[in-house]
Amino acid sequence: MAESGDRFVHDITVRWSDCDPANIAYTGRIPNFALEAIDAWWAAKIGIDWFELNLDRNTGTPFVKLSMEFLSPITPRHTLRCTVRLTKLGRTAMTFAVDGHQDGKASFAGEFVCVAVQADRFKATPLPEDMRLTMESLVDAEG
Amino acid sequence: MAESGDRFVHDITVRWSDCDPANIAYTGRIPNFALEAIDAWWAAKIGIDWFELNLDRNTGTPFVKLSMEFLSPITPRHTLRCTVRLTKLGRTAMTFAVDGHQDGKASFAGEFVCVAVQADRFKATPLPEDMRLTMESLVDAEG
Amino acid sequence: MAESGDRFVHDITVRWSDCDPANIAYTGRIPNFALEAIDAWWAAKIGIDWFELNLDRNTGTPFVKLSMEFLSPITPRHTLRCTVRLTKLGRTAMTFAVDGHQDGKASFAGEFVCVAVQADRFKATPLPEDMRLTMESLVDAEG
Amino acid sequence: MAESGDRFVHDITVRWSDCDPANIAYTGRIPNFALEAIDAWWAAKIGIDWFELNLDRNTGTPFVKLSMEFLSPITPRHTLRCTVRLTKLGRTAMTFAVDGHQDGKASFAGEFVCVAVQADRFKATPLPEDMRLTMESLVDAEG
Repeated sequence: MAESGDRFVHDITVRWSDCDPANIAYTGRIPNFALEAIDAWWAAKIGIDWFELNLDRNTGTPFVKLSMEFLSPITPRHTLRCTVRLTKLGRTAMTFAVDGHQDGKASFAGEFVCVAVQADRFKATPLPEDMRLTMESLVDAEG
Repeated sequence: MAESGDRFVHDITVRWSDCDPANIAYTGRIPNFALEAIDAWWAAKIGIDWFELNLDRNTGTPFVKLSMEFLSPITPRHTLRCTVRLTKLGRTAMTFAVDGHQDGKASFAGEFVCVAVQADRFKATPLPEDMRLTMESLVDAEG
Repeated sequence: MAESGDRFVHDITVRWSDCDPANIAYTGRIPNFALEAIDAWWAAKIGIDWFELNLDRNTGTPFVKLSMEFLSPITPRHTLRCTVRLTKLGRTAMTFAVDGHQDGKASFAGEFVCVAVQADRFKATPLPEDMRLTMESLVDAEG
Repeated sequence: MAESGDRFVHDITVRWSDCDPANIAYTGRIPNFALEAIDAWWAAKIGIDWFELNLDRNTGTPFVKLSMEFLSPITPRHTLRCTVRLTKLGRTAMTFAVDGHQDGKASFAGEFVCVAVQADRFKATPLPEDMRLTMESLVDAEG
């Protein structure tokens, strides 16, 4: 059962190196912020990050889709707070909503869909049972 | 008037540095490939790249939205051919469709929406007239 | 006077996204880790990060030289502890030593030389007096 | 025998995405430009890029050392011409000199040392014989 309201927050220090000559984080960096937040969600909520998941459990989660809205420019002046929620859990597919805020203002809203695969064959496969059980308790469909 | 079928192809050499331990281009790199293709479209079709557009013409084109579908894994084994089309042109907004192929197979399909701004104020503004005229001749609404 | 032994430690979570198909952090990422540690040193020790230094104080610190030795592979399995020391302070030039460790083992050792410039002219200039005084108290020539 | 003067040139289009708010390529991008040039050298001169070398020949070339001097700021206004030379060839180690120029002006000069390893064991090993022979003909010690 979904434990309503489960939200994981991952803070990112945006840096000079992330910014382009417009003095804001380059567009191409922003999906990377959101992906970093999802990787951090795995480490915190499932207890295993993408690296260990792939190498130690032979399980990958390649993305099949992503969409993002950029709501206000991102700069190094404030921490970028990224909220991650697992919003859908299928047999092999997972959907994450990732929202970014700086200084109380929405920076971006994104949705990311990935699929569990057997890493050494790149073949869709149900998630390992232990992870799936944990995930079921975390789905936050209400958003 | 839209000159039907205007398509710009930008080739990218995918490299070792783009790949993660799954031996494929990291998800976070792929929006960057598409953005590079759009920057190359500006240079080829409008005659000015993002850097010059911002610094020399005081015009930025920050993105407000992007969505991508990842259709097959991207590797360094083949050139990544990125097709860029301008599919919508509003008063300040532009929509680009970017599709990537490797070895004849679809790698990704994406849509990117940006808005022209006065660069030093980050304020939406119509595109400079000369660019707008060129763009009108390039819109490929049929896709 | 140099306060002997001043060392700043900046921790980096190495991620899947940093790694290449050899399952270790890509070489090109490693100078970026060290630079991030230096930017963090500025924020912690001087009270201003590179972004604010450039935009609010019109002072840049472009690098003129760097050298790194890679001592053992870097992976996401352990925190990357980066130690930053200011080892030389000239009229306009600064030298930083940055060392990285994972799990008690040396990962890299690097030296980075930068020069203060007036940001809007890219012209070498002495550091602002307040920063210079703070820096003088931090130089750790013994290494 | 060294064929004196063998120089490989790899051109890079520097982009908006490579630049920071100082309107020049970010320092952390520059080692990546040089590494890209070395990867391109492998593809052109040895006939195999790093990706294939690792995956198809079980041979990696991790870097053990790099040093770079930054001689003038790099911008998108001119092509970055990177010259790659193999300057030393040991039993397992190789040294590359990579120099970057824009518009006839030196941008950077760098030296990169790597070691051949058996990729699946990360253990130093002599290069495969075919590659070694090709490399011997390419060493340009005079620089």
